[in-house]
Amino acid sequence: MIATLLIQHEKLEQLPSGGTLSPYGVHQKHGQITSQALQLLSSQRRQFSNTYISVKLDETSGVAVMKLKRPPVNSLNMELLTEFAINLEKLEIDRGCRGVILTSAVPRIFSAGLDITEMCGKNADHYGEFWRAVQEMWLKLYGSSMVTIAAINGSSPAGGCLMALSCDYRIIANNKKYTIGLNETQLGIVAPFWFKDIITEVIGHRAAERSLQLGMLYSPTDALKIGLVDEVVAEDKVQSTASAVMAQWLTLPDHARQITKSMMRKPSLDRLVTHREADITNFVSYITRDSIQKSLQMYMEMLKKKGR
Amino acid sequence: MIATLLIQHEKLEQLPSGGTLSPYGVHQKHGQITSQALQLLSSQRRQFSNTYISVKLDETSGVAVMKLKRPPVNSLNMELLTEFAINLEKLEIDRGCRGVILTSAVPRIFSAGLDITEMCGKNADHYGEFWRAVQEMWLKLYGSSMVTIAAINGSSPAGGCLMALSCDYRIIANNKKYTIGLNETQLGIVAPFWFKDIITEVIGHRAAERSLQLGMLYSPTDALKIGLVDEVVAEDKVQSTASAVMAQWLTLPDHARQITKSMMRKPSLDRLVTHREADITNFVSYITRDSIQKSLQMYMEMLKKKGR
Amino acid sequence: MIATLLIQHEKLEQLPSGGTLSPYGVHQKHGQITSQALQLLSSQRRQFSNTYISVKLDETSGVAVMKLKRPPVNSLNMELLTEFAINLEKLEIDRGCRGVILTSAVPRIFSAGLDITEMCGKNADHYGEFWRAVQEMWLKLYGSSMVTIAAINGSSPAGGCLMALSCDYRIIANNKKYTIGLNETQLGIVAPFWFKDIITEVIGHRAAERSLQLGMLYSPTDALKIGLVDEVVAEDKVQSTASAVMAQWLTLPDHARQITKSMMRKPSLDRLVTHREADITNFVSYITRDSIQKSLQMYMEMLKKKGR
Repeated sequence: MIATLLIQHEKLEQLPSGGTLSPYGVHQKHGQITSQALQLLSSQRRQFSNTYISVKLDETSGVAVMKLKRPPVNSLNMELLTEFAINLEKLEIDRGCRGVILTSAVPRIFSAGLDITEMCGKNADHYGEFWRAVQEMWLKLYGSSMVTIAAINGSSPAGGCLMALSCDYRIIANNKKYTIGLNETQLGIVAPFWFKDIITEVIGHRAAERSLQLGMLYSPTDALKIGLVDEVVAEDKVQSTASAVMAQWLTLPDHARQITKSMMRKPSLDRLVTHREADITNFVSYITRDSIQKSLQMYMEMLKKKGR
Repeated sequence: MIATLLIQHEKLEQLPSGGTLSPYGVHQKHGQITSQALQLLSSQRRQFSNTYISVKLDETSGVAVMKLKRPPVNSLNMELLTEFAINLEKLEIDRGCRGVILTSAVPRIFSAGLDITEMCGKNADHYGEFWRAVQEMWLKLYGSSMVTIAAINGSSPAGGCLMALSCDYRIIANNKKYTIGLNETQLGIVAPFWFKDIITEVIGHRAAERSLQLGMLYSPTDALKIGLVDEVVAEDKVQSTASAVMAQWLTLPDHARQITKSMMRKPSLDRLVTHREADITNFVSYITRDSIQKSLQMYMEMLKKKGR
Repeated sequence: MIATLLIQHEKLEQLPSGGTLSPYGVHQKHGQITSQALQLLSSQRRQFSNTYISVKLDETSGVAVMKLKRPPVNSLNMELLTEFAINLEKLEIDRGCRGVILTSAVPRIFSAGLDITEMCGKNADHYGEFWRAVQEMWLKLYGSSMVTIAAINGSSPAGGCLMALSCDYRIIANNKKYTIGLNETQLGIVAPFWFKDIITEVIGHRAAERSLQLGMLYSPTDALKIGLVDEVVAEDKVQSTASAVMAQWLTLPDHARQITKSMMRKPSLDRLVTHREADITNFVSYITRDSIQKSLQMYMEMLKKKGR
């Protein structure tokens, strides 16, 4: 099948784009029911804005720009996570959308990670639902069949870093003040096993172990060195670079690229799906401890005082 | 056992070469039956030429040079794959052979990968047999107990890249026109899971994912940067470098090196052996689709027109 | 939980240090029984010296320096291994100790690896007990909940390299005469599967395969290039650098760091625990072969002659 392809490069576009040697059971983007659902959605298609997420789809290029807009630091609360998952799902079933650029509408911050107020002073049911929403956001993003590019235009610690790591490609603004990393241990907490799996896939076991044990936050150039991001560009070039990289990725036939992506990511996705309830139970049992609640409340008090 | 070895380096040669701490069940090269088989083979030993493969064994060094010779692009058809597996097996059981240098007799191409004509206009049985031959080539090469070095003297896309990746060491000619990579997605197809496993082992998960999703073909220097090859040398030094590297690898005691190699490679080999029939079924069911056959026929027509 | 952490960095110290999102079942360092045991041990706490290991604990910093002192080459015999495991366990249950710097009291050598005399001219029971001691040393060191830093002030082949690889961080003296690596194949033997697992985790599959097949010993700078060590410093700065790096690691809250470490290392530890008896059986059956014993005896004779 690949015979003589090399000397015939200009013909490659005419090859079947839907072919695959091995159907790995990736979820198909364009089924018939999906197509009907699309009709219903199509009126909203160009732009949908929510409380904490804005989505703008360019129908010519098939690329959506999805912006987090929850000042001051895009912290991920239940509502933002839910809007994120719904909007991503909408794009997923939209025939007109082939790629998503994930970025921030808030200056100097991509996302500060999970919102502490969702984990403090609530009941166990709430914590469980919140953790399920965190998982859902990740399953949708890491498992997306679209091309996903993180245009990291600000700092991106903890859960913010996880979002970036879950995309297909990461571009960060060249600003020394911005940092990125899974810094959970610095806060006295532990990144869940699926955060660990993803960073291990991206930067390798050794770098991941050191990075996680120390809760390291990297400057853009240091992040590039260890492979935590793919590209560092001038701050005003982040969006245009993301668009250019996206255009390149979209030259690939969707179907083959999607199955290939799924083949690489399925093991990690499956691991969370399999252990999802245990992961929630774990989280709830931890977060409901008196000592933890007390500490979190003290931390929140400090943040409030600082905020005044 | 390793005590004081450091200060006694000049004595190391006299250590047992057949020893091992852990017998991992690698297939032994030199059994008694093997020895008899060898007697039968010995008349052919110095040089055996076939239609598409030539083999030249230097009995002094114990190194065989195996050349692919199927112009114009060494595309891998059933006959070449079969000859390859048979010849490799012959060398495997030959006490006089300890290493194989794999290279091309055709200028500017190592191998263009699988032959499209084997996957087009034939029946399901044929496709199944062809895929089995592709698997067999790989199981033999990746699982070889000999030292295997790829002397990549030309472009090496798709199946050609797989062959190179399956050797112990890769040397490529420093010629910008040559490219190497698993570019299947560019053709609208998907590399099978074992191609994915091997490239992940060689260049790591992140680089493999990007490489496979984009179907990237690398220049020699770029291939070196990501670890897809081990060395880039001047075009006229490829064979001599391969010989020099081989001599270095052959200073190691065979038995310990073989078991070590097997320990590293067994998991991936086992995965294909376990899923071999499913992998064939997958391939046949894909390749017999009307849409795929039509596309392949159109592609072949184009190649013919171009060839005129 | 991580919300707004970025803009509040100066508050991080006040966060709970005992918190964790996911209790992965790491063994807790400071239980009540442990606390009692500690009282008993506390008189010995400042310094305990044994035949082959010296330990000096600085109670102010909570850092112990553990020195191998078995001239001429710190080869690992049964007694050293046993002392090592006991002393590490003592520190493990000592509330006053949070980190261990592992180094050598012998000039120019970190450790030459396993002691050949333990594997020669003894009976099967002895070999089995010896191998169990080797495993135990590794399970304790790789599984330690303390911060472990290797201050590699000399050559470190084979088992010496394994000890270094099992620490959290590796600093080596910048001296070209020192080498480090798992060079077992050069001696005609095979590194056990858990040596292979650890080096694969540290330097990746491809580098590990090449390194193990060739039994490579690296200079400090080459070791740094492939990630076998983390830092190369002037010979007289090894200990001070180790102390400085340790201080940095100890800024992290113990509990979160420990669980994170356990999450990364548990799979490899579990693999040896599961296959421990088979690994011993394997070793004994290999080492008791007549051919191997003969070779080892010849090797020892040579060492003795050289020693005269």
